[in-house]
Amino acid sequence: MTVQNNPRITEQLEAWVNENKGHAVLGTTAQYIPALGKVDPGKLGICMIDEDGHYYCAGDTDKEFTLQSISKALTFVALSCHYGLDFVLERVDVEPTGEAFNSIVPFEIHRPNKPFNPFINAGAITISSLLPGRNGQKKFEFLKGFLEELLGHPIEIDKEVYDSEWATSHRNRALAYYLKEANFLELEVEEALDIYISQCAIKISVKDLALLGLILAYDGYNPITKVKHFSEEIAQVTKVLMVTCGMYNSSGNFAAHVGIPAKSGVSGGIMAAVPPKLHSQTYEFRAGAGIGVYGPAIDVQGNSAAGTMMLRQISKEWDLSIF
Amino acid sequence: MTVQNNPRITEQLEAWVNENKGHAVLGTTAQYIPALGKVDPGKLGICMIDEDGHYYCAGDTDKEFTLQSISKALTFVALSCHYGLDFVLERVDVEPTGEAFNSIVPFEIHRPNKPFNPFINAGAITISSLLPGRNGQKKFEFLKGFLEELLGHPIEIDKEVYDSEWATSHRNRALAYYLKEANFLELEVEEALDIYISQCAIKISVKDLALLGLILAYDGYNPITKVKHFSEEIAQVTKVLMVTCGMYNSSGNFAAHVGIPAKSGVSGGIMAAVPPKLHSQTYEFRAGAGIGVYGPAIDVQGNSAAGTMMLRQISKEWDLSIF
Amino acid sequence: MTVQNNPRITEQLEAWVNENKGHAVLGTTAQYIPALGKVDPGKLGICMIDEDGHYYCAGDTDKEFTLQSISKALTFVALSCHYGLDFVLERVDVEPTGEAFNSIVPFEIHRPNKPFNPFINAGAITISSLLPGRNGQKKFEFLKGFLEELLGHPIEIDKEVYDSEWATSHRNRALAYYLKEANFLELEVEEALDIYISQCAIKISVKDLALLGLILAYDGYNPITKVKHFSEEIAQVTKVLMVTCGMYNSSGNFAAHVGIPAKSGVSGGIMAAVPPKLHSQTYEFRAGAGIGVYGPAIDVQGNSAAGTMMLRQISKEWDLSIF
Amino acid sequence: MTVQNNPRITEQLEAWVNENKGHAVLGTTAQYIPALGKVDPGKLGICMIDEDGHYYCAGDTDKEFTLQSISKALTFVALSCHYGLDFVLERVDVEPTGEAFNSIVPFEIHRPNKPFNPFINAGAITISSLLPGRNGQKKFEFLKGFLEELLGHPIEIDKEVYDSEWATSHRNRALAYYLKEANFLELEVEEALDIYISQCAIKISVKDLALLGLILAYDGYNPITKVKHFSEEIAQVTKVLMVTCGMYNSSGNFAAHVGIPAKSGVSGGIMAAVPPKLHSQTYEFRAGAGIGVYGPAIDVQGNSAAGTMMLRQISKEWDLSIF
Repeated sequence: MTVQNNPRITEQLEAWVNENKGHAVLGTTAQYIPALGKVDPGKLGICMIDEDGHYYCAGDTDKEFTLQSISKALTFVALSCHYGLDFVLERVDVEPTGEAFNSIVPFEIHRPNKPFNPFINAGAITISSLLPGRNGQKKFEFLKGFLEELLGHPIEIDKEVYDSEWATSHRNRALAYYLKEANFLELEVEEALDIYISQCAIKISVKDLALLGLILAYDGYNPITKVKHFSEEIAQVTKVLMVTCGMYNSSGNFAAHVGIPAKSGVSGGIMAAVPPKLHSQTYEFRAGAGIGVYGPAIDVQGNSAAGTMMLRQISKEWDLSIF
Repeated sequence: MTVQNNPRITEQLEAWVNENKGHAVLGTTAQYIPALGKVDPGKLGICMIDEDGHYYCAGDTDKEFTLQSISKALTFVALSCHYGLDFVLERVDVEPTGEAFNSIVPFEIHRPNKPFNPFINAGAITISSLLPGRNGQKKFEFLKGFLEELLGHPIEIDKEVYDSEWATSHRNRALAYYLKEANFLELEVEEALDIYISQCAIKISVKDLALLGLILAYDGYNPITKVKHFSEEIAQVTKVLMVTCGMYNSSGNFAAHVGIPAKSGVSGGIMAAVPPKLHSQTYEFRAGAGIGVYGPAIDVQGNSAAGTMMLRQISKEWDLSIF
Repeated sequence: MTVQNNPRITEQLEAWVNENKGHAVLGTTAQYIPALGKVDPGKLGICMIDEDGHYYCAGDTDKEFTLQSISKALTFVALSCHYGLDFVLERVDVEPTGEAFNSIVPFEIHRPNKPFNPFINAGAITISSLLPGRNGQKKFEFLKGFLEELLGHPIEIDKEVYDSEWATSHRNRALAYYLKEANFLELEVEEALDIYISQCAIKISVKDLALLGLILAYDGYNPITKVKHFSEEIAQVTKVLMVTCGMYNSSGNFAAHVGIPAKSGVSGGIMAAVPPKLHSQTYEFRAGAGIGVYGPAIDVQGNSAAGTMMLRQISKEWDLSIF
Repeated sequence: MTVQNNPRITEQLEAWVNENKGHAVLGTTAQYIPALGKVDPGKLGICMIDEDGHYYCAGDTDKEFTLQSISKALTFVALSCHYGLDFVLERVDVEPTGEAFNSIVPFEIHRPNKPFNPFINAGAITISSLLPGRNGQKKFEFLKGFLEELLGHPIEIDKEVYDSEWATSHRNRALAYYLKEANFLELEVEEALDIYISQCAIKISVKDLALLGLILAYDGYNPITKVKHFSEEIAQVTKVLMVTCGMYNSSGNFAAHVGIPAKSGVSGGIMAAVPPKLHSQTYEFRAGAGIGVYGPAIDVQGNSAAGTMMLRQISKEWDLSIF
């Protein structure tokens, strides 16, 4: 893989990073997870990768951060890959909900026979508990191996973030015990939470996110290594989820103003998949791309404040919306 | 406009109509609106139109029916066209909600400063009350004129359906008085409901729906008449709404399994917009299309039972998903 | 009936009025009903009546005000009187709810087969619609006649308050249409609301409220006129409702700190029934009493701010709690 | 203490036990706690005690059972006794809620600054965590000591029931983690649950319940031993809670039809406090009484089916209602 062969694109990205950096003041770092709360909220970085493997990077791209909710999309893919989409869709629905990502209300009111979707915490914890493996450790190792294969390099957990979240996740424990009572979990609560909090604490870079976005854009196929990692069907459902539920409770607004399937995390990361769009009149990225963004100041919905605004501008200028 | 120049496509559609007709037993006609409840639940028809104006029709395509909730998408377009998208998005949000289309719960719990989206009844009644015109009648005339211009022919209200809904819409009245208290309505409740129930009762055919779908697929442009009816921006937000909220509480499943922006109504109609997708390997409709479907037996979510299954098959076979 | 034969009691009441007057600053007059919003919030008055018909009055007792929610208790009695308690309890439950008096949420969530209790608006509007009479006017006349018989004098509606509430009761209309859809109402919505808003607008004095409280304390019997107006059973259920739901969402706190069955209204009135308590060590009112209070500055729950505090003091000093 | 000096009363109680035994078929033993689910649902027993220490017992009175939710009333008293009522009421409210005893919905919707009342699980677990003692074990020992002093004999935990509930209380764990996040608990979740589940598993007899009821009826005073255990104020608030929230979601109906402050548990036990009522025309128990009931078949609300019906009859016949 080579980095950036087209300096014009990189210059353009650098200009947009500078233009949007200031939007970080509209957000703040995630205060409820101490280890996340203390990072520099002013950072903003982006990497894009095209189908030939060229990376175009601008801003703060060297800092690693944790996957947080971005992991929800990847665990969904991993599980679907192993057991097939039908197995997964029998256990987690794919309907958006207007409630908060950690809400118990819709469960108690509607008593659904499965969580509403895999991108709310209830669905994500359920998905994690279902991963293949005879115990929590094996299940997490499966996920880790799957991601390492996609990325082509080893990954690690940020132990400080893990510890920080483990100690403060009363709300997730409440949710998980609720799921346990509903018989949605295949593991004991503490084991299921261990996987979930571990996957949230995986360290990642914007380059990694861009590559993952590209593989999703190419329906499970890595156009650089020519490896087919997962089926078109799994990729499509994942992108549907990214559009309808990927950006917490502003998914609708993100779809309306950006229109790129994306998944965000409270660390400030965003993974976006730009599918090919040959009929577009814009020259750049008509053959699709992957995007990784990092901007740790998050807005009230939980999305990178500056990152969201920057993607809005990029999508508009380069006509990247799927709509 | 000429009807069907490619007999192979029509034959294929006829085969799919026959294959999917039986799925009508999974639904029933809308019993809570007497005039809708008494139609033949076994009917199923489809029309597709391509960018050259060729129609491909199969099954029961001569029966007219009423727009019902499909009108919500059109009123949103009409209002946005007149006042601009910013004006509308200040007054109605574009976020999906997991609650029923006529639910009051999210309002009372969250006390939002605008309805969640224009495709739930709360948002739709609000939109209708905001249409240009100094009273209810003028406002409805504006909408009617807008639709007639899109369709190129006069439209009419089904008086029996209108009367039936007017007399039984206690729940919509409850909702509208709730909206009135929240200061969302520009009209008195009865006037706002009059427009809303009128727009639901507009008579339409699957050919009409196909044409409207085509104009949305072409971002507000009619490729046959070469008329630009509304902006790309309005079309895109409308398609986002169709994907995230267009099929009531199975919008997520429809997006996952069909992947075409669509809006349904409890009359059993569906309007779908197939955008161009030049990179698709399938020959048919790579340049986009509009689809109109009619199948009056609706499932528990409110969507045509047979129509939904048929679209699932068509989308898969012809690779029409935007995801 | 003679007024006050025991000057010591009246002096004591006057002292307590003066001590508690200042608590009015903890509340404000009901702003959402314009005609109520403009009265002097500083007023405070009380009347007590004993079983011999002696009145003990202090403070602002000459000003008439409107019944508002106090009417809910009286309509319940009137309806039960005519059709029997079983008839009524089949149509309205007697369970407290933690939700607001005008909430639609519990209906949509629990879909009960009857309103939770007759003291929330849903139950009260239902009760009003069920009153005997072949139309709304006859039904209201029945209620009016019933109250006049209890009070021994004609009553009138405050037309300004009626008009004010009629024009602004969007939320009650929303609720009533909801009830209509659930088939709880025996009348059309507008007719049912007319009775409900009329009963709320009935003019009353603290002396009247005291007498009504005494009749409830004496289980439907007026110890002065020796007339039995309604059954012990009806009186007891009414007092249960007063304890569990009579003071809106601070009924529990009122019961804990005052312990007297009472019903309040947003006009600032309170009707309280002090049952006989012969084992009490206090001399005053061991044979029971009725209490009427007026203090138009209401707290966030909707109860007279100064009136509630004054009743707390009186109950404590004279040991009037039923608990 | 002597057992029954008035054979007529005992005979009457025996007749009522026999008359009401059959109502057990309207309920079933608590299936969600395996150790409770397997007891004989047909049993029914009652003990009453008067102010002179005479017991009147009938039916199945020798079988011990567990306190379950009855313990909520006792823990509230114990905590109030030690820290004072003000301390407790700052940390738990006394308002009834229409939601289920283990509901999380009202917390998420209303975000109250304290649980609604100590008789829903949220309030009860909070109360237990606040008991005096530097850890969970000390806190439970405090409660145990308090109860043993009231009862005059040692008490024990039913280990099988404790184990059964500990293993299956996912929902209570969910609730407790929710409370932990809201900062309501003074202990770690597992420790707080340990006390709560221990108190629920305390073995008790109908004679014990009768004595506890008598002490509550006498406002914290044991008229037999002449010991004042707790203040009148604490007793009164406890009785208010018993009336408004003591019988789960049929507290209102129980108050309307029985009218005696009571607390039930899913084991089928009921503790009731009959205050003195000298003005009553009935001879029996005009000076007050305590009642203990056991009937393990519970209705959908969680109350002893036969026990509730029997108390309804007894209250009516002997005029025991406080209303």
